Amino acid sequence: MNPQAEELNQIIRQKSTPVFEMLSERGKNIFFPKKGILGQTAEAKGTRINATIGAAIEDDGSPMRLETIASKINLDPSLVFPYAPSFGRPDLRSKWKSMIYGKNPSLGKTEISSPVVTNALTHGISMAGYLFADAGDEVIVPSLFWGNYNLTLANGYGANLVTFNLFKDGGFDVDAFEAKLNEGPIGKKILILNFPNNPSGYTPTQKEVDAIISIIGKAAVKGNKLVCITDDAYFGLVYEKGIAQESIFAPLASLHENVLAVKLDGATKEDYVWGFRVGFITYATKGGDAELYGALESKTAGAIRGNISNAANISQSLMYVAYNSDEYALQKQAKFQVMQQRYVAVKEALKDEKYKKYFTALPFNSGYFMCVQLAEGLDSEKVRQTLINKYSIGTISLNGILRLAFSAVASTNVKEMFEGIYKACEECS
Amino acid sequence: MNPQAEELNQIIRQKSTPVFEMLSERGKNIFFPKKGILGQTAEAKGTRINATIGAAIEDDGSPMRLETIASKINLDPSLVFPYAPSFGRPDLRSKWKSMIYGKNPSLGKTEISSPVVTNALTHGISMAGYLFADAGDEVIVPSLFWGNYNLTLANGYGANLVTFNLFKDGGFDVDAFEAKLNEGPIGKKILILNFPNNPSGYTPTQKEVDAIISIIGKAAVKGNKLVCITDDAYFGLVYEKGIAQESIFAPLASLHENVLAVKLDGATKEDYVWGFRVGFITYATKGGDAELYGALESKTAGAIRGNISNAANISQSLMYVAYNSDEYALQKQAKFQVMQQRYVAVKEALKDEKYKKYFTALPFNSGYFMCVQLAEGLDSEKVRQTLINKYSIGTISLNGILRLAFSAVASTNVKEMFEGIYKACEECS
Repeated sequence: MNPQAEELNQIIRQKSTPVFEMLSERGKNIFFPKKGILGQTAEAKGTRINATIGAAIEDDGSPMRLETIASKINLDPSLVFPYAPSFGRPDLRSKWKSMIYGKNPSLGKTEISSPVVTNALTHGISMAGYLFADAGDEVIVPSLFWGNYNLTLANGYGANLVTFNLFKDGGFDVDAFEAKLNEGPIGKKILILNFPNNPSGYTPTQKEVDAIISIIGKAAVKGNKLVCITDDAYFGLVYEKGIAQESIFAPLASLHENVLAVKLDGATKEDYVWGFRVGFITYATKGGDAELYGALESKTAGAIRGNISNAANISQSLMYVAYNSDEYALQKQAKFQVMQQRYVAVKEALKDEKYKKYFTALPFNSGYFMCVQLAEGLDSEKVRQTLINKYSIGTISLNGILRLAFSAVASTNVKEMFEGIYKACEECS
Repeated sequence: MNPQAEELNQIIRQKSTPVFEMLSERGKNIFFPKKGILGQTAEAKGTRINATIGAAIEDDGSPMRLETIASKINLDPSLVFPYAPSFGRPDLRSKWKSMIYGKNPSLGKTEISSPVVTNALTHGISMAGYLFADAGDEVIVPSLFWGNYNLTLANGYGANLVTFNLFKDGGFDVDAFEAKLNEGPIGKKILILNFPNNPSGYTPTQKEVDAIISIIGKAAVKGNKLVCITDDAYFGLVYEKGIAQESIFAPLASLHENVLAVKLDGATKEDYVWGFRVGFITYATKGGDAELYGALESKTAGAIRGNISNAANISQSLMYVAYNSDEYALQKQAKFQVMQQRYVAVKEALKDEKYKKYFTALPFNSGYFMCVQLAEGLDSEKVRQTLINKYSIGTISLNGILRLAFSAVASTNVKEMFEGIYKACEECS
C-alpha cells in the first residue's frame, strides 16, 4: 500500500474505526498524491518563473487560449481555461457547503465535510461505489430506483443491488425498509436514499423520515456499520406541505458513530444545468471532525483524479458566479413556480374518476416525475408505443408503470397527456 | 450477463475473436442500455407532448434555464443546457473523426470507429482500463510515464504497470521495448504509447516509429493479442523535422488483426482548454468495420454512462463551434508558434557548455515539457526546493530529474530559468 494511503487510513482509523471498516479495498488503497507533481506544483505557486504547470501560459501570465473560444464566454479566462483541482474549485466548495447548511437548517452546528466536486450525480454514485463497495457487497435500494445504479454499482464494482418495497398504503413502506435493513448478519451495510425518488417523484413525509431515521439508528446501535448514501439529485423540488423539506442527510449527519452519511447532490437538476456536470459529495458522521473529513476528502479526490482528473472548471465557475449573483434566488424561485404549476396541473387532471379504470398514480409530491400504475392486464410497453404512434405522446414504460416527466410538459398540455394515456389504454385493453 | 451485453459480445466475437479476447471481464459485461429509458426517450423524439425527458423544458420547448447563467454564454441554450449523449455530441464526434483523418493522412481509407467523447484524457485512460484491464493484468509503459497512470490503472483496476527503458543513445530504446513486449508467454498484452511523452517531451523519429510498429507487428504474428493504447494528449506539438508528425495510431490502425489500436486524445492540450474536459476514445483494428466498431462504441458509452453519465455539453458545443470557425486554424497556428519559440529558447539556452557539469537534457522535441537529468550525487528534491526558495523558480522533481514545463515559461525567461537551475545545483553539490 502506498504510504500516503496508509497515512490517510491511520487518520480515519484513529478518528473512526466504523468509517474505516466501511471503506472498500479500493477505498483503503486510494489517496490523493499530494507529495508528487501536484504537491510540488502547489509549493511553486507564486514563483516568478513557474515551470511546474502542466498547461500553457501566455507571456502575460494569463492562460493560453484561442480567442474564437474565449469570445463565447463572458467570464475572466482564469476562471474558465485552467484545470480545476481534483477536489473542485475551493470557492465553489465553500459556497456549496454554506448552501447545504442554508437548505438544511436542522444541521445546526453539526460539522460536515467540505463538498468534493464530482462530474455531477452519476459520478458521485460511482465515486461512492469506488470508496465503499467491494465486489459482492449488497446495496439496498427501494423497489423503484434509477436504473443507472445497475451500471454504476453492479457493472462498475460488482455490487449487488437488493430492493425493499417502496410504497404501502399510499406512503413509504417503513416496515419493508426495516426488514430489509435488518436482514442477514450484523455488519457493513450500504443503502441509497433517493428523495425525491426517481422514477416515482416521492419524498417521504416528515413522519416517515423520522421513522426511517429511527430504524437506521437502531440498526447502528446493534453494531451495523451503515454507509447511508443520499442521492439528492432533485433536492428542493417539493410541492406539498408536510413533506420533508430538508435532505435526510441532515438527521443522518449526527445520528450515530456507526452511520456515515454520504450526500450526493449538485447543480444539474436543482439549477437546470444538465449539460454542465457539476455535483458534490459531502460526508458527515456523529463526532466527525475536520481531520477525519479531510482524509475522506483526500481519498475522494484521489479516486476522482484517477478517474477523470477533475470536473470542468468552466462549469464550476459559471455556477459559482451564479450562486453569488443577486438574481439567482429570484430566478430559481420563478422556475420552481413553473414546475409547481405543472405538478398542480397533474394533480388536477388526475381527479378525473374515469382514469381509475386503466391507471392510478403512484404516490408523488416532488421532483421531475410521477408514475402511473396501469391496471392489471395492460401492457405498458404496448401503451407506450400506441401513445407515440397514435397520439404523439412520449412516456417511459417500466414494467406495467408509465413514468411521466411533468418537468418537460407545459401545464396546458397536461390534461391532454392524460386523455391520450386513457385512450391508448382503452385501445390496448 | 445482461442480454444486451451478450448481444454486443456476439457481434465482437463474430467480427474479431482477438478483440473479444482483449476485453476485461468488466468489458465483457458492459453494454449501453439502449432498450431502457434512453432507448424509449430516443423513440419519443419529436412527439408533440414528450414526457420522457429527464430534464425541465420551458413551455416554448427550449431548455429551462436561469438567465443569470445563460447570459454568460454566447451560444444557443440548446447547445449548452441539455444533457449530451453518453456517446458524446454526434456533431462533435463526426467532426473529430474527420479531424483525425486530416491530422493523420497516412490513415488513408482505413476504417476507424466514431470517437466516443470522454471527460478528457484521464477519463479515456480510465475507460480503456475498464474495458480491457483485469486485476493482475500487466500494462507496459516506458520508464518515464505520467504518474497518474498509477491511480487510474493500478488503483482503479488492479493492473500492474511494468516499464521498459525509454532512452538509449539519445533516442527511443527500441531494444528495451522489444524485450519487454516479448517477455512472458504469448497472450493478451496491454501497452500505452504516449507521444509526445509526459514527462520527457519526446516523440520518436519516423525511423523509430517504423521500428516500434515492426516489433508490435511481429508480436501480433506470434499470436499475442495487443491492446495498443495511444495517449495522444500532446498531439500536434512537434517542433523538429524528421520526428513523427502523425499519431502512431495511424500505422497501428491497420497493422494486424491481433492489434487493437485505442486512440485517446482530446481538446485539452491541443486546443488549450484544460478546464473544459473534452477527450475522445477511438478504435481501429485491421479489417474492423462499422458493426465491430459500433459494438465497441456501445460498450464504451455504457462504461461512461455508468461512471459519469456524460461529459459536459457546454464544453463539447464550445469545441464544435470553434472547430467550425474560420479563425480556428490561424489562431491555433499562432499559439503553436509561441510554444515553438519557447522550445527554441530552451534549445538555445542549453548550448551553454557549463551546464553539463550539473545537468544534461533528456531527449525532447515536442509537447509541453522537457527534463534535465541532474549529475550523479545531486539531490533533485533539494535542488527543487532551493529553486523555489532562493530563485523563485518552480520545477518538478522526479528521482534525480527536473521536469520543466516550457509551455508555461515566456521565452524571455528561459535563459534565466536555466541559470537559476545551474546556480541551485552549484549550491546543492
